[in-house]
Amino acid sequence: MLKPAGYRLLIEVEEVKETTTGGIILAQQTIDADAAAQTTGRVLAIGEFAFKEYPARWCNVGDTVTFAKYLGVVQVDPGSGKKYRVCNDIDILCIVKPEPVANA
Amino acid sequence: MLKPAGYRLLIEVEEVKETTTGGIILAQQTIDADAAAQTTGRVLAIGEFAFKEYPARWCNVGDTVTFAKYLGVVQVDPGSGKKYRVCNDIDILCIVKPEPVANA
Amino acid sequence: MLKPAGYRLLIEVEEVKETTTGGIILAQQTIDADAAAQTTGRVLAIGEFAFKEYPARWCNVGDTVTFAKYLGVVQVDPGSGKKYRVCNDIDILCIVKPEPVANA
Amino acid sequence: MLKPAGYRLLIEVEEVKETTTGGIILAQQTIDADAAAQTTGRVLAIGEFAFKEYPARWCNVGDTVTFAKYLGVVQVDPGSGKKYRVCNDIDILCIVKPEPVANA
Amino acid sequence: MLKPAGYRLLIEVEEVKETTTGGIILAQQTIDADAAAQTTGRVLAIGEFAFKEYPARWCNVGDTVTFAKYLGVVQVDPGSGKKYRVCNDIDILCIVKPEPVANA
Amino acid sequence: MLKPAGYRLLIEVEEVKETTTGGIILAQQTIDADAAAQTTGRVLAIGEFAFKEYPARWCNVGDTVTFAKYLGVVQVDPGSGKKYRVCNDIDILCIVKPEPVANA
Amino acid sequence: MLKPAGYRLLIEVEEVKETTTGGIILAQQTIDADAAAQTTGRVLAIGEFAFKEYPARWCNVGDTVTFAKYLGVVQVDPGSGKKYRVCNDIDILCIVKPEPVANA
Repeated sequence: MLKPAGYRLLIEVEEVKETTTGGIILAQQTIDADAAAQTTGRVLAIGEFAFKEYPARWCNVGDTVTFAKYLGVVQVDPGSGKKYRVCNDIDILCIVKPEPVANA
Repeated sequence: MLKPAGYRLLIEVEEVKETTTGGIILAQQTIDADAAAQTTGRVLAIGEFAFKEYPARWCNVGDTVTFAKYLGVVQVDPGSGKKYRVCNDIDILCIVKPEPVANA
Repeated sequence: MLKPAGYRLLIEVEEVKETTTGGIILAQQTIDADAAAQTTGRVLAIGEFAFKEYPARWCNVGDTVTFAKYLGVVQVDPGSGKKYRVCNDIDILCIVKPEPVANA
Repeated sequence: MLKPAGYRLLIEVEEVKETTTGGIILAQQTIDADAAAQTTGRVLAIGEFAFKEYPARWCNVGDTVTFAKYLGVVQVDPGSGKKYRVCNDIDILCIVKPEPVANA
Repeated sequence: MLKPAGYRLLIEVEEVKETTTGGIILAQQTIDADAAAQTTGRVLAIGEFAFKEYPARWCNVGDTVTFAKYLGVVQVDPGSGKKYRVCNDIDILCIVKPEPVANA
Repeated sequence: MLKPAGYRLLIEVEEVKETTTGGIILAQQTIDADAAAQTTGRVLAIGEFAFKEYPARWCNVGDTVTFAKYLGVVQVDPGSGKKYRVCNDIDILCIVKPEPVANA
Repeated sequence: MLKPAGYRLLIEVEEVKETTTGGIILAQQTIDADAAAQTTGRVLAIGEFAFKEYPARWCNVGDTVTFAKYLGVVQVDPGSGKKYRVCNDIDILCIVKPEPVANA
């Protein structure tokens, strides 16, 4: 497994389609580009020193979060071969919550 | 819903026209570009650590605010599919008030 | 009205000519460019946290001030439709005073 | 008159020639470029918060000072129509003194 | 041997293939580019002042770590002629652990 | 004379040849470029606030010092018409000493 | 001799070949480029204020150190005409030690 170091976060983005709706198999390069363009993912792990400049974390492990396109670095887990996104703590833009936005 | 993290703000810009006055349906790309060029929106939510360097917030939830063109990042609420603008706290330029400008 | 947020200033620049001296009506784009190139304006409002790093304000509401060409962001007051310049507090270069320069 | 704001200085550069030695009248653009290229001027006024990070001012009102080419912003005094150079306090390079350089 | 100075880390990346699967010998330039593109390596040594801004090290000697492509500087050990990657302490993105990612 | 302001140093570079060894008179532009490319000079004066972040000066008036090519700004002394180099205090690279380098 | 000022180091890189193995004399420009590309050298002198932000020096006079290609500035000792590399203290990447790398 990948354990994010320092103030990094390990993010799992949703798997991208590997075939078109018509069934054409997409090139690995296209799949990778689609994965890098995703802006929503789940926080798998938070580095030990993340958010240390703030009294509380911005997000927790298990949260679905949003971030900018092409954020961070794609890292391959040498164990599973699966790809993850590694970013800095303060790159997180929003947490996706099940309840609707309150208009306070 | 999207909950802005850290020092981010969640802004709802006005819906842009999806047809021309003559009734021609605009391409999604044009609609997105028009939305990104808008400079006025309503503050839907304020991150927990926003404006923490200041004794008071610059704006409140519900305020109509102005900002620079193409500011911030467009984020899609996975629940509703609606698009919002996410920006940093200090990117807010003005609050739109109903009363006229005082010439003190 | 527009209330400048944080350390912003709201500046009203002089109206630019909308016709040439020969009477030709200028394109809106030309008028906007002329307005953005102006370097003198009147301070209409000062954000709550402007000049907070200094023991005193650099300028006051009502002052005529000078600044660099194309400074800041043009903002439209949704109420009146009038355009203003919004800039940061420390972008102000000079205050225009009625009396002559003293050679102390 | 122009009163420099904050940490700005108001500098008067020497008038540049408006005709060539052969008597040809130079274009306003050429005169402005020549003025902007000048590197010596007289300090007319010093902003209230200039040099505040130092125990003493680097220069005083009335000093002839030197600076880099094209430094700062040209500002027109709306009263006299005369052009001045406005720069930051720490842009001053040297003070011109009447006595020769001491080799201490 | 190379002892990383200050806040540097000495990283040993895996040896890259010097022949293609078909047996063609790769140019040294290709081998070097492949080595520089690797994103996983083993920490061989940690500089004396690395991670000093944090209460604990982000990684330890012997850890397998991940980092961005083309990170740092390639250095040749004059003793062995072997090439190592030298990077800054906070360039480490993840530590590769044998156990699976916990979904806390 | 020129008195360096704040943290500036006034440096006198050696005069450059104004004729080639074959006696051809060099263009003023070539002479100026040669002067700007010089990397050794004598410290003529040190600004009042130079080296204030250090317990001692890096160099003294009268020292021969070295610096990077094209460092700083060329300034003309209005009194003598002579050209000097003005640079920042921490731009000094080495002091030239008469004794040989010690191999401690 | 050259005495490094402030936080600079004086580095002596190994002499580069001035002829090819076939005996062709290399152009001075080629020799200089080869010298600037070297990444190993011996520390000849350390400026008085080097490594002052750290409780101990990163390297000592006499150490063989490594650094990035084309690091720093080449300086000629006016006494001997010999060329040295001058760099900043924290540019040092590794110290070359005679013993092998420990796998702690």
